[in-house]
Amino acid sequence: MKENQDIISQNIDSLDWSVKPHHLYEPIGYILSQGGKRVRPQLCLFSAELFKGNKQQAIYPALALEMLHNFTLIHDDIMDNADLRRGKETVYKKWNTNIAILSGDTLFAKAYQYLLNYQGNHLRELVSLLTNTSIEICEGQQYDLDFEQQNDITIDQYLNMIRLKTAVLLAACLKAGAIVSEASTQEQQLIYDFGIKIGLAFQIQDDLLDVYADVSKFGKNTGGDIAENKKTYMSLKAIELVQGEDLLQLQHYFSSTNFEKQEKFSAVKAIYDKYQIKNYAQNLINQYYNDAFESLEAINRPKEAKQPLIDFVNRMVEREY
Amino acid sequence: MKENQDIISQNIDSLDWSVKPHHLYEPIGYILSQGGKRVRPQLCLFSAELFKGNKQQAIYPALALEMLHNFTLIHDDIMDNADLRRGKETVYKKWNTNIAILSGDTLFAKAYQYLLNYQGNHLRELVSLLTNTSIEICEGQQYDLDFEQQNDITIDQYLNMIRLKTAVLLAACLKAGAIVSEASTQEQQLIYDFGIKIGLAFQIQDDLLDVYADVSKFGKNTGGDIAENKKTYMSLKAIELVQGEDLLQLQHYFSSTNFEKQEKFSAVKAIYDKYQIKNYAQNLINQYYNDAFESLEAINRPKEAKQPLIDFVNRMVEREY
Repeated sequence: MKENQDIISQNIDSLDWSVKPHHLYEPIGYILSQGGKRVRPQLCLFSAELFKGNKQQAIYPALALEMLHNFTLIHDDIMDNADLRRGKETVYKKWNTNIAILSGDTLFAKAYQYLLNYQGNHLRELVSLLTNTSIEICEGQQYDLDFEQQNDITIDQYLNMIRLKTAVLLAACLKAGAIVSEASTQEQQLIYDFGIKIGLAFQIQDDLLDVYADVSKFGKNTGGDIAENKKTYMSLKAIELVQGEDLLQLQHYFSSTNFEKQEKFSAVKAIYDKYQIKNYAQNLINQYYNDAFESLEAINRPKEAKQPLIDFVNRMVEREY
Repeated sequence: MKENQDIISQNIDSLDWSVKPHHLYEPIGYILSQGGKRVRPQLCLFSAELFKGNKQQAIYPALALEMLHNFTLIHDDIMDNADLRRGKETVYKKWNTNIAILSGDTLFAKAYQYLLNYQGNHLRELVSLLTNTSIEICEGQQYDLDFEQQNDITIDQYLNMIRLKTAVLLAACLKAGAIVSEASTQEQQLIYDFGIKIGLAFQIQDDLLDVYADVSKFGKNTGGDIAENKKTYMSLKAIELVQGEDLLQLQHYFSSTNFEKQEKFSAVKAIYDKYQIKNYAQNLINQYYNDAFESLEAINRPKEAKQPLIDFVNRMVEREY
């Protein structure tokens, strides 16, 4: 576990971004050096290990997918007017929008350039995976932006959006590890499905924790989604189930962001409690976890070989993520 | 000539952008349908013909590079606050900045996806070419943005910027045609060099025509670069050569964009005339053309085989471009 994280860090740290034009490359060095947990490239290495592959070759898609991830963060932060990311100023705030657009574009291209270091027989599959995943992430982000203006989003539409925006990248990392390890097409699909289900479970858990987290444990302020009227599994399930006077109140609170934050949070949470929204969310999370582990189970590798990946995912669930 | 343009148009028109999410794909269909002369993908097909290659396979890098070009236009127009492109509203004006960022990103990824239709033995080289070219174009755009804030740009720095921003893409299109045709590495380099020199000549000619074009023939308003204090070969050469009272006057006019346009144009042009800036520009253009045709000459193909490409480039020079 420590080992994979170290391999990732060493490889990322060895990249030199102090080249010209500085306004283009400094922001890339800045965002990559912030790290975060680097869950995605680690998933790629764990998958390569599971399928007994060449970890040295897995580094290339692993870091390429991490670069893709960071490129999407740079551009998303412009679109979301986000000031902070990982506790630091976002690229567009620290520099400006033009630099954020252009350094994001460059980082996207650099992902392909890094991937081209891969010297095995599956470059086509890896380029295709990186490409299709990028397109799906863009689609997910576009749906997310569209949903802000729409009030008739179904839960299925929401689940499709989070699948595209967040789950496909986790799945792609796992599949990349399988591809470099020459796993069969069927095994590639199983580990990809595992990633999709894990990704969906994580996102819904995020939605749940925004309302029900123990702040002292979660380490993050709760209620942000409610304050911002963000569409989440929680809010959509509530809109679906809540009736009568409660529904009017919910719609009232979701009609503006000008309410006193704590008052709004308490009122909305009381309605969620009354209709047991937490239970619905927990059940769906459990269902996705079960589905995920069924896919993993179906992979023809010994149980011990799967254990490191299982341990890693379990630590992510415990909010190491 | 007509034939290659038709092949390009048919292939571009056959792409279906009426898919969801519409806000992501409509802008892509919009910009690709505007056409322009589609010089770049045509260069790829002419090069494939020159090297006796498979034109059907050359279509894939040709359109991928055209998609790359249009992606850069969508993002450049945001950065340059440009309202119009090819006589139509730019994507960011017609929709908004977020949609322009995201549909641009998607079009970039779609360039790779389209390239993956290529079924020959040189996918690695083509992905590498598309990638390195993208990075260089971003670098060129960043230098161009940087230069707006700098008043000590040398002509060499300017030539490097236009090489990156415009010439490498023309060169890449020609090289892609050579790659799919299995031309030797040396021939690939020669046709690439031809493209670089042609691209530099075109851009300096553009700079020259902004001051000296016959509007009735050129079909474009002149003097825009002077009005906007844009760094061009003309302005940089003038700053280098002009002295004394003339230099003070030039610096005076280049210190603001608030002058009456025609008065400023006449005054600056009079200084250019006095120092024969046009001659310097024309000499450099001729030198690049000569260098370009020397590279083409060195390619071991019969003269007749080179003629269609030469004719096409000559038509571009005559402002078909």
